[in-house]
Amino acid sequence: MSKKTVQNNKPKGMRRRDVLKAAGLAAGSVLLSQVSVNEADASTIKEAKWDREFDVVIAGSGFAGCAAAIAARREGASTLVIEKMPVFGGNSAINGGAMAVAGSPLQKEKGIKDSVELMTADMLKGGRGTNHVDLLRVVCAGTVEAFEMTKEFGVQWKDVLLQFGGHSVQRTCQTVNFTGGDITIPLMEGGIKLGAIFKNRCKLEEILTDDKGEIVGVVVREGYYFPDENSGKLRRYKINRGFVACTGGFGYDLPYRKMQNPTLDESVGCTNHTGATAESFHALLAVNAAPVNTACFQLGPWASPDEDGFGYAPQFNQQAAFPYGIMVDIRDGKRFVNENADRKTRADAQLKHCKTPEGEIFYPVAFCSEPGIVKSPTIKHGLKEGVAWKFNSLEELASFFGIPLEPLKAQVKRFKSFVAKGKDDEFGKPIFEFDRALYLDKPPFYAMRAWPKVHFCQGGVNINTKAEVTHMGTGQPIPKLYAAGEITGGIHGESRLGSCAIAETLVMGTIAGKNAARNRA
Amino acid sequence: MSKKTVQNNKPKGMRRRDVLKAAGLAAGSVLLSQVSVNEADASTIKEAKWDREFDVVIAGSGFAGCAAAIAARREGASTLVIEKMPVFGGNSAINGGAMAVAGSPLQKEKGIKDSVELMTADMLKGGRGTNHVDLLRVVCAGTVEAFEMTKEFGVQWKDVLLQFGGHSVQRTCQTVNFTGGDITIPLMEGGIKLGAIFKNRCKLEEILTDDKGEIVGVVVREGYYFPDENSGKLRRYKINRGFVACTGGFGYDLPYRKMQNPTLDESVGCTNHTGATAESFHALLAVNAAPVNTACFQLGPWASPDEDGFGYAPQFNQQAAFPYGIMVDIRDGKRFVNENADRKTRADAQLKHCKTPEGEIFYPVAFCSEPGIVKSPTIKHGLKEGVAWKFNSLEELASFFGIPLEPLKAQVKRFKSFVAKGKDDEFGKPIFEFDRALYLDKPPFYAMRAWPKVHFCQGGVNINTKAEVTHMGTGQPIPKLYAAGEITGGIHGESRLGSCAIAETLVMGTIAGKNAARNRA
Repeated sequence: MSKKTVQNNKPKGMRRRDVLKAAGLAAGSVLLSQVSVNEADASTIKEAKWDREFDVVIAGSGFAGCAAAIAARREGASTLVIEKMPVFGGNSAINGGAMAVAGSPLQKEKGIKDSVELMTADMLKGGRGTNHVDLLRVVCAGTVEAFEMTKEFGVQWKDVLLQFGGHSVQRTCQTVNFTGGDITIPLMEGGIKLGAIFKNRCKLEEILTDDKGEIVGVVVREGYYFPDENSGKLRRYKINRGFVACTGGFGYDLPYRKMQNPTLDESVGCTNHTGATAESFHALLAVNAAPVNTACFQLGPWASPDEDGFGYAPQFNQQAAFPYGIMVDIRDGKRFVNENADRKTRADAQLKHCKTPEGEIFYPVAFCSEPGIVKSPTIKHGLKEGVAWKFNSLEELASFFGIPLEPLKAQVKRFKSFVAKGKDDEFGKPIFEFDRALYLDKPPFYAMRAWPKVHFCQGGVNINTKAEVTHMGTGQPIPKLYAAGEITGGIHGESRLGSCAIAETLVMGTIAGKNAARNRA
Repeated sequence: MSKKTVQNNKPKGMRRRDVLKAAGLAAGSVLLSQVSVNEADASTIKEAKWDREFDVVIAGSGFAGCAAAIAARREGASTLVIEKMPVFGGNSAINGGAMAVAGSPLQKEKGIKDSVELMTADMLKGGRGTNHVDLLRVVCAGTVEAFEMTKEFGVQWKDVLLQFGGHSVQRTCQTVNFTGGDITIPLMEGGIKLGAIFKNRCKLEEILTDDKGEIVGVVVREGYYFPDENSGKLRRYKINRGFVACTGGFGYDLPYRKMQNPTLDESVGCTNHTGATAESFHALLAVNAAPVNTACFQLGPWASPDEDGFGYAPQFNQQAAFPYGIMVDIRDGKRFVNENADRKTRADAQLKHCKTPEGEIFYPVAFCSEPGIVKSPTIKHGLKEGVAWKFNSLEELASFFGIPLEPLKAQVKRFKSFVAKGKDDEFGKPIFEFDRALYLDKPPFYAMRAWPKVHFCQGGVNINTKAEVTHMGTGQPIPKLYAAGEITGGIHGESRLGSCAIAETLVMGTIAGKNAARNRA
């Protein structure tokens, strides 16, 4: 769409150009201090003094940022990736390394029928129907290509397929070390080999636009030491083709979180790295990006109250205790939810069942038998850190957590009968025939406590299927502004399914990087 | 808090002043075309040519705007209220005229024990605990004074107290004609008598700030004909003390609604007037107001699919059929929710019980006996319009809606037994001893169909207890910017209780108008 069309198609809301024209103002524009305002059109801005110049600047070095960098370089654009933290990779690097792929080679090999339509339907159900379906389809349709791209750059995947909560088939691939760093490191190295520059401790301060609202550059803080906002030096980078925001979510931003939902206060943990704050979201809003579903935080039901941050519990609970074992209320020894339901269902159930109206919490316990933990190699770290425990009998386990023994025994017996007949009559959890040997059976038992932590922001800025950020007033794309990953809203609706973040970020990051690079002046 | 403090206390996020200083920019500032940028400080802006000048400008003429105008005039500020529509009053004028008051004279007279704490607790429960409690307390604590203020200006209240869904006592006062116009008209007349100017067809286009981010004026479109965005002429109003946004919600803004939640599409009705769109929300975001819970729309469970807009159903269902009658699923003749629960509970139940997974809707029917409609004088209009019906027997009613007769008879009998013993064993709806004569008993029966419509935006911009709008980046108040009413977010959490809108808007509107007027240069 031409810039002219963008400017003329404003359906309603603020007609900024008209306002400015009539009032003789240039509000919201980037204006140079030595230039009188009525001369400060796009041409003078382009001639201004900039510290550096790139075709494409990408903020954030997680999955989306790395994918965008590769895509932009492949289009021949000079490409800079800025990362505010000292280490690259953001939350992606501490992610569990699980990626949903609709129609992967491994699915075909194992005879598992899957499709873009089925994955879209699963994610739409998980999102309570509130997903932006056009975006969702693009994501699901792009997963095979994105998966192949990771392999091209040397990402190593295990020869297993997992079925995460809310997915109707086994479609989740798993990296060898159970970490997103298995992906971000090879992709970053790949991007660098292709010629992209990755610059750490470089924080986005402001996005600069000309008087037409088109992105012309960014102000960054070079040599930034998070969270010292006075550290480093301000620099202006000129951007020729496009700016891509891959700055992630803001689950660690307590003031923002409390503003959106006061119950998500200091008492609620968070799996994110400490840099997951909202200032880049604000920088995008400041250039008129439309906010979507600002209050929609996902709680991870598989976290542990006994460790900080992401910890070891998510891997153990998701891949061992929840699918092959059970989670029980310590007061009655009973299950209270399908441990493999989608995240929102489980987190809601934990909060509803195990927290009293007065706020007292009885952390539920999830456990499985020895064979199940073949899926959870990280349990050894949990045991070492004292946040996971091994028990030689149900009596030991019950005694340790204060669970009434007889009801617990009855619950275990009941679940074993479900496994035996291949059907969970209580909560409908899938029982995998081919993994029968892994299920809860006899001692020893491995256990962790499970309690929700803020994990993911479904909200963010609005984008279209080209990863263009749309304008709050006009609904049209903001010229040369792109976004991908957790900073965007809408794809996952009210609740994201597990292992769909890598899928989304790699697919949309690639689209964003490619379109930014193709957006020649 | 002094401006200096505001500027210095930025906790994190974009440090705009630093950026500008270092980069020699003046982005986001209002700059006059004939002034070079480095001279465009606050003093030159104050000397600029403006079309008009006021101490306080208030956008929106609903409850909040009228209350703000009265408060601002009482502080001696020259005050302008702009209204974009041809008629004054916004959604307030078509509201049902019911106001929750904690500790009203009528409650004392009737011996009903109520308190600020109890009303706060009720609203917090309705909001699923996600309300901004500090704001909520201010609202509840201010209801008696706000109620007395309305009487001072001639608002006439009925001598009855109602108990709306989610309220634990009868605390809702009702205007004589069951309409918010009973309030907006006298308050507007009162404001005019006090010297405020009310100007219709005058639309807020842009909020103007100086290079410190302080509000200095607005651009408006005088002579605007909604929704023709080219109509009228742009004018610049200088503001000396404060701008107060009382611009209401955006439930009628379909593109905005679909962006936030695609399920709220064309197929979902809306009780709002057509001018309830999101452009003023955008104008506030454009000056860095923090958005809260942008996707949180309330559905009114008492609307009718048989009429457009607000219609007659809300008054009939809320005040007659729901409290004194029953609502049944037409497929089995059974009740499926406490008809007096809070709005979210009821709307969720309607959507869950009466809509199939394939999207087929079986609109439930709500009905009561003749004595109940003493509470609903507007039923006569519904009957005339053919959206409400009178039946001389249960057989007639069942036949008309296709409800199986025997189960319906059994349900009516069961409900009558609950009324007789004063306790609803099925869903716990309160049975009012002193209103026993009004309950569902014998023919004739009056009925309407009930189905949720988008009614209210819980989301909006963030304010503090002084009604100051806070900055997205710093969390500090934006100097001279105030907001009250539906344009603000946080007070009602996830779901607003009925009759709390008038309470909130009058209390916070008064605070906003007063503080804006006291904010001398």
